[in-house]
Amino acid sequence: MNERILSEDNQVVRRFFALDTQTYKDGALPARTKEMLGLVSSLVLRYDDCVTYHVVRCREEGVTDEEMLEVFAVGLVVGGSIVIPHLRRGVDFLDRIEGEGIHATKPEHSHT
Amino acid sequence: MNERILSEDNQVVRRFFALDTQTYKDGALPARTKEMLGLVSSLVLRYDDCVTYHVVRCREEGVTDEEMLEVFAVGLVVGGSIVIPHLRRGVDFLDRIEGEGIHATKPEHSHT
Amino acid sequence: MNERILSEDNQVVRRFFALDTQTYKDGALPARTKEMLGLVSSLVLRYDDCVTYHVVRCREEGVTDEEMLEVFAVGLVVGGSIVIPHLRRGVDFLDRIEGEGIHATKPEHSHT
Amino acid sequence: MNERILSEDNQVVRRFFALDTQTYKDGALPARTKEMLGLVSSLVLRYDDCVTYHVVRCREEGVTDEEMLEVFAVGLVVGGSIVIPHLRRGVDFLDRIEGEGIHATKPEHSHT
Amino acid sequence: MNERILSEDNQVVRRFFALDTQTYKDGALPARTKEMLGLVSSLVLRYDDCVTYHVVRCREEGVTDEEMLEVFAVGLVVGGSIVIPHLRRGVDFLDRIEGEGIHATKPEHSHT
Amino acid sequence: MNERILSEDNQVVRRFFALDTQTYKDGALPARTKEMLGLVSSLVLRYDDCVTYHVVRCREEGVTDEEMLEVFAVGLVVGGSIVIPHLRRGVDFLDRIEGEGIHATKPEHSHT
Repeated sequence: MNERILSEDNQVVRRFFALDTQTYKDGALPARTKEMLGLVSSLVLRYDDCVTYHVVRCREEGVTDEEMLEVFAVGLVVGGSIVIPHLRRGVDFLDRIEGEGIHATKPEHSHT
Repeated sequence: MNERILSEDNQVVRRFFALDTQTYKDGALPARTKEMLGLVSSLVLRYDDCVTYHVVRCREEGVTDEEMLEVFAVGLVVGGSIVIPHLRRGVDFLDRIEGEGIHATKPEHSHT
Repeated sequence: MNERILSEDNQVVRRFFALDTQTYKDGALPARTKEMLGLVSSLVLRYDDCVTYHVVRCREEGVTDEEMLEVFAVGLVVGGSIVIPHLRRGVDFLDRIEGEGIHATKPEHSHT
Repeated sequence: MNERILSEDNQVVRRFFALDTQTYKDGALPARTKEMLGLVSSLVLRYDDCVTYHVVRCREEGVTDEEMLEVFAVGLVVGGSIVIPHLRRGVDFLDRIEGEGIHATKPEHSHT
Repeated sequence: MNERILSEDNQVVRRFFALDTQTYKDGALPARTKEMLGLVSSLVLRYDDCVTYHVVRCREEGVTDEEMLEVFAVGLVVGGSIVIPHLRRGVDFLDRIEGEGIHATKPEHSHT
Repeated sequence: MNERILSEDNQVVRRFFALDTQTYKDGALPARTKEMLGLVSSLVLRYDDCVTYHVVRCREEGVTDEEMLEVFAVGLVVGGSIVIPHLRRGVDFLDRIEGEGIHATKPEHSHT
């Protein structure tokens, strides 16, 4: 579906997508830290699509179970009990990718 | 005012405050990383009080200007243009603490 | 299910629903513009149910693909990358109604 | 300023304001309970203007300090640490109205 | 899945869950009132998982249809039309538990 | 302060600001409509800084009082009573710019 969005001649949307990809590249902070920042942001804004995306990316960057759970803990305390179902689905998803070896499918600009 | 809140006999509130303090201690992730997680969460939830608190704490943990700005960049792209005024006040505040040597006043449980 | 809600004797809820319908009628601004306002509001508040409703209504009011995408672009820049999955589902839904000739089912007061 | 808003010929806005007033009247639930519902909603949506309004109204309806703090506790746990500054200002405001005998100024439709 | 979360050695998460359970116990306010506070908070924060949980709990505490609808009305007026789909699913769910005698499955710390 | 932000070498932030400016230019939709879209988005996301900015911009684009109030009405119904204080400050601000002839100060990339 990205193709449909990108084939439309809307430069603002296309540029935003490019910017989104650029944001998580290594810089002063490594991609690993940035992905954890993306994960906690998705948690407090309570968006499962982005939580699972960043869980996979964090795992690819070598974030351990213990570290991941601490990211979740920050999100939980900042965002409150309303975050719990997202945290659960995040942990559940983490379990599944362990078993199944899922990788972040990252077509150009694909995440949130 | 914390005293007033804590002197009231509400255990839930008191425990939440203790938990909040515990969240940012060194663990699998160092306090430094956790403060950056707290900062980006405050940015996307758009709360100046917490942004300034975490800016000071990040600085105390040795987060550089370049790193801080990258945390802001993640918050901006995830949270959108609605985040800009908070980003501005965050950068402005950063400038002021440079000149004035402000430290995070951290009475027990004081932040968000 | 609206019947159930409306058959309950809660005047506040019934009046709110009537008000909601009235809001999008032609006035100083045409319904066409108001539906675009409803669409961008639903996008930044990230609610798919309302996004699809307003996409259909916008289409019925003659909003073109190019215009629709510009509404999406405003929502994306104001609301941030967290809006992307909603934008995708909105565009996807737009594609489907093109093919299938879907119309906004508008039982009295039915939308958001 | 309400006069300015109401003198404008916008029926939707005027009706919304009337509805807002009607919402908190005694019904199946007493006004007292409804004001506590309004208070916790304002807390989790983090809006000081509405928090102080509902704190005053709750006090007028005879809600005690202990009860008020339990409403705050629910808001804190549901909404997370991001709610803390609002809770503080709410408790601070509560202290002030104790000393000063503030009453909810309730010009027709005046609150949130 | 709770077991997985709790078996992980993250004290912050475990304590938050315990606190969440404690919040809704009888205190200065009865559990019945607190569950209504939890319900309206879930509505304005627009989270179906928590809405259904609290609907069941409210029913268990003897909240009547008329009272429940007034809680919904407060949530609708405070939170706006964006709340409508959640209100609908809440009412729909209420209908189903009437027929089926659903009870809140409350494994330790299970809700939001 | 923009200078400080832009002088920092963070390309993501700079590009986001440029994109933000580009978003509201005439396109398939005229700037006038886009500014109304920006206004309603700021209202439902409840951000005064952006509300006042877009009120000024709408006025510059020739949006009338009646039209402006209808934009406010959509924001109020979608976003709920929590929007009222912002609507008030928006109307108040509108009154002031009438008398004082305020123009949107638009340093490059300055708004939200």
